[in-house]
Amino acid sequence: MRISKKLEQAHAKEDKPTFSFEFFVPKTSQGVQNLYDRMDRMYGLGPQFIDVTWNAGGRLSNLTTEIVDTSQSIIGLDTCMHLTCTGMPKKLVEDALRDAYNSGCQNILALRGDPPTDTEKWQATEGGFSYAKDLVKYIRAEYGDYFDIGVAAYPEGTDEEPDVDLLIEHLKEKCDAGADFIITQMFYNVDKFLAWVTKCRAAGITIPIIPGIMPISTHASFLRRANWCKINIPQNFHDALEPVKNDDMAVRELGTKLVADMCQKMLDSGEIKHLHFYTMNLEKATIMVLEDLKIIQPNTSANPPLPWRQSLALGRQDETVRPIFWKNRKQSYINRTQDWDEFPNGRWGDSRSPAYGELENYGRFLRYSSGQSQDLWGEPTSIKDIGNLFAKYVSGDVKSLPWSDSPISNEVELIKPQLIDLNSRGFLTINSQPAINGVKSSDPVHGWGPKNGYVYQKAYLELLVSPKVLATIVERIGVDGNLTYYSVNKDGELSFNVNDNSPNAVTWGIYPGKEVIQPTIVEKISFLAWKDEAFGLGEEWASCYPSSSKSRELIDSIVNSWHLINIVNNDFHDQLGIFDIFEGLTAVEN
Amino acid sequence: MRISKKLEQAHAKEDKPTFSFEFFVPKTSQGVQNLYDRMDRMYGLGPQFIDVTWNAGGRLSNLTTEIVDTSQSIIGLDTCMHLTCTGMPKKLVEDALRDAYNSGCQNILALRGDPPTDTEKWQATEGGFSYAKDLVKYIRAEYGDYFDIGVAAYPEGTDEEPDVDLLIEHLKEKCDAGADFIITQMFYNVDKFLAWVTKCRAAGITIPIIPGIMPISTHASFLRRANWCKINIPQNFHDALEPVKNDDMAVRELGTKLVADMCQKMLDSGEIKHLHFYTMNLEKATIMVLEDLKIIQPNTSANPPLPWRQSLALGRQDETVRPIFWKNRKQSYINRTQDWDEFPNGRWGDSRSPAYGELENYGRFLRYSSGQSQDLWGEPTSIKDIGNLFAKYVSGDVKSLPWSDSPISNEVELIKPQLIDLNSRGFLTINSQPAINGVKSSDPVHGWGPKNGYVYQKAYLELLVSPKVLATIVERIGVDGNLTYYSVNKDGELSFNVNDNSPNAVTWGIYPGKEVIQPTIVEKISFLAWKDEAFGLGEEWASCYPSSSKSRELIDSIVNSWHLINIVNNDFHDQLGIFDIFEGLTAVEN
Repeated sequence: MRISKKLEQAHAKEDKPTFSFEFFVPKTSQGVQNLYDRMDRMYGLGPQFIDVTWNAGGRLSNLTTEIVDTSQSIIGLDTCMHLTCTGMPKKLVEDALRDAYNSGCQNILALRGDPPTDTEKWQATEGGFSYAKDLVKYIRAEYGDYFDIGVAAYPEGTDEEPDVDLLIEHLKEKCDAGADFIITQMFYNVDKFLAWVTKCRAAGITIPIIPGIMPISTHASFLRRANWCKINIPQNFHDALEPVKNDDMAVRELGTKLVADMCQKMLDSGEIKHLHFYTMNLEKATIMVLEDLKIIQPNTSANPPLPWRQSLALGRQDETVRPIFWKNRKQSYINRTQDWDEFPNGRWGDSRSPAYGELENYGRFLRYSSGQSQDLWGEPTSIKDIGNLFAKYVSGDVKSLPWSDSPISNEVELIKPQLIDLNSRGFLTINSQPAINGVKSSDPVHGWGPKNGYVYQKAYLELLVSPKVLATIVERIGVDGNLTYYSVNKDGELSFNVNDNSPNAVTWGIYPGKEVIQPTIVEKISFLAWKDEAFGLGEEWASCYPSSSKSRELIDSIVNSWHLINIVNNDFHDQLGIFDIFEGLTAVEN
Repeated sequence: MRISKKLEQAHAKEDKPTFSFEFFVPKTSQGVQNLYDRMDRMYGLGPQFIDVTWNAGGRLSNLTTEIVDTSQSIIGLDTCMHLTCTGMPKKLVEDALRDAYNSGCQNILALRGDPPTDTEKWQATEGGFSYAKDLVKYIRAEYGDYFDIGVAAYPEGTDEEPDVDLLIEHLKEKCDAGADFIITQMFYNVDKFLAWVTKCRAAGITIPIIPGIMPISTHASFLRRANWCKINIPQNFHDALEPVKNDDMAVRELGTKLVADMCQKMLDSGEIKHLHFYTMNLEKATIMVLEDLKIIQPNTSANPPLPWRQSLALGRQDETVRPIFWKNRKQSYINRTQDWDEFPNGRWGDSRSPAYGELENYGRFLRYSSGQSQDLWGEPTSIKDIGNLFAKYVSGDVKSLPWSDSPISNEVELIKPQLIDLNSRGFLTINSQPAINGVKSSDPVHGWGPKNGYVYQKAYLELLVSPKVLATIVERIGVDGNLTYYSVNKDGELSFNVNDNSPNAVTWGIYPGKEVIQPTIVEKISFLAWKDEAFGLGEEWASCYPSSSKSRELIDSIVNSWHLINIVNNDFHDQLGIFDIFEGLTAVEN
């Protein structure tokens, strides 16, 4: 969504300040992965949007659009992409805008960019742009009102141009070229800032001005950045920080107070309603300021609109149904379905046809290197070892599994002892959900969707089962009239007890004035697409161990001979019935 | 569905005889309406299909296709249309087949037809057909495998052709021309019939033979028909009936036993699995035979697939969602939506656009004449009178209302005292449903859909409210966070408290291995379409009384000044909360 519209809506709804985070492009792949994890966590704080900086020209420039895409598609954050224009061939600008468009990103911060270090002077590339205002005009001409366009402002001048009044003239030109909002350079002197805002307004600049806030982490970095940006540091900052400059903890605590006070002063002025934080890709300092200001608006705990995180990618905004299989691998699901023309909106129905992306196109499955995998999951040499590892994941002592990117969710509490018991007997559970027979949609653990609703789930289990016990389990499923299942091995031998191919809704919600929402399903075609990924994950895990090792042999034998089975207890009044079919069985004789 | 396929499925599923009913075209409109009511009741007995006879050439021939259409579309019975070919211009045959096709009818009984009485000889019209086999060939050529084609057979010969062997040759020709099944003339001599079947099989006739059974109502009609058809009456029939021929009741009871015995003998032979009854448009005699045979398979009590009767009209078979407003006027709903290209299948969503048929095209609303209406609903002269009439409908003492074609359903028991109380206070309830918080889908009153499911309903009330209390009621609805409403008067002044225009599912079911089924909704556009009909019904009711009468004035004043309001209690855990908003109120001061 466009930032200006989003802020307008937020401030119309509630008289509470809003905020956003800026991240820069990390230098390594592992850094990118860590940033994604951090963005995912900071989503929970409820930012209105995030910014991702631009890395002009370098090999990292593609990374900007990749991070923007991930932020929009997978993390579900409205994103503003920085885009610099000097030294940029026009083709690169075009590509970047098109990539942003395709990601569903609707916000561009149009920047001039730093001069190349070798020439120390700005110069336009052939057919390129000389000024940010040219880029603003170009975006507006090419994309109409699709993008919100932000521009930068320097309340205390820049290194090259200390004349603030002249800079306001330039800013006015950028506004006149079509900008929608302004984000400022960092500063610490609120009085100077507010006086500058008044000057801007007097100069006819009417669009929202968003102050850029740099939290204070260490004394050294604080001074370095302030000096680099040539900004004024008020005396009270010096007075407070100088005496404790060697005590990082004290600097951070006092710094938090100082920055929060300056934010509060801006908010109290009535001129400012939104704060933009330069996070420097760190969480702690920003969170401390937000906590001091008491304006964190948690995104996750209350009522997420659906039981899974919505994607903001272009064409995906209406997506309301997903198969349960990728519950713990949402990134993979989004990647594999990114070429779908249409997402199931409320029913699986007509979108059953699009093929899931071929696995080969999505690279390896496992997030971790061989070494990391061994560190995380040890060197199992028996089914019992693996069962215990899975049991530790269920109990929360292990934070991920090859089949689960993130720690197990709170909802497992209802069936934790049963899952631990199953795994300790060698039934390797890779996915599950408890039965929920109508709890309020506001329930802190199981709730989702609008208020005054009720949510439901059918108990679900997905596990790897040794061929020795498969027949017994399938027979017991057949006797129970409420259980449905699909089972498949690596070679694709499929069995099931479902009459037609209609999807089975395993999560649904009932709300005032609405149709039934049924966001999670079990369904054959998607199970077969998941099956290749599930066995592929096992193979990759095996290959983390040396080829002659006991661990590799063990995991390979599971992948090659065991069956992946999913079971739904359709009687959602019955929490533990699904476990009865395993009574007295163990996966293998030991 | 094609009869041959339907019977094949029924007999594969269960080793139990099946049956069907034949109806003829009544001579008056009232007779047609009575036949529809009878067909609707006999639907409940579970026939595999019904036959409707053809009225060649006469002014009634359109009535055949109209009855076929109603049977398929509204009553939901698979229907076989008789079609005679001699004396029929080819254009009429073409029209009849196209009408049948458009009704979703897939079964034609291809007949030669009786010779015109003036010539006493069959003769083909120009370009027409001379023999039934020509008609069979024509249908097969024009429609491929779309239609199941039945042909008639005469096990004891006909008036014109007593040579049974020659008739078997003709029958074989009709089979070779493409017939799918055979229905026989009535008979009472089972031995002769079974011998004839053996001869047919020996002659190479392999398609199913369905015996036509004529139950015995009175002694006179029994003799007359047997004589007319020139069929043999076994001695035991004479011996049993002759002594009691003047006692209609005894004739019917003994006749039932005799006919049931002959049916049982045929079923025991193993050759016959399906019985076709010539009902003569009467219920009792046929039902008595079926009861004696113990083969009635009630269609309604156990598990109808949806909470409303499915239509078998072409293009409507996948219809799975209807607005609640027409709950008691299904014929009107089907008529008004018959031109829709597509019916909502599982969600209201994309089919919101088709306009409901304009009311003018569907004639008057009220089923009854002025006299009948007065007989049914008296001559009310006060709101209290009308309230009492409505209360009597709720209690079952009045069988219909202008807004309800049929008696109130059993489900009302849960809220009966509340509805009676409301009406007695002048709140005129024209539709309602109780809240159901998950009862088994097999529940005899509220259940529908596949087994092992759970069904739910939100409490619903639709009523006419005097302007005096409307504001209070709307205010009280607003205070309760769980109630949503739409209110409109005759002039179209609409108010509501629903945020968006999404449909509100008020009935839904959860089943093993399926998406949530949500067959009944409340929704703005359809409410506005219903509103015109609802006020129109009131106007027609008013016009049943003389123009200067107190009754007309009273009903007209309600139509012209009261509001039609529908209210949903979205908290389906709460049965009676919806009635709280009427506490202490009466519709008018008396």
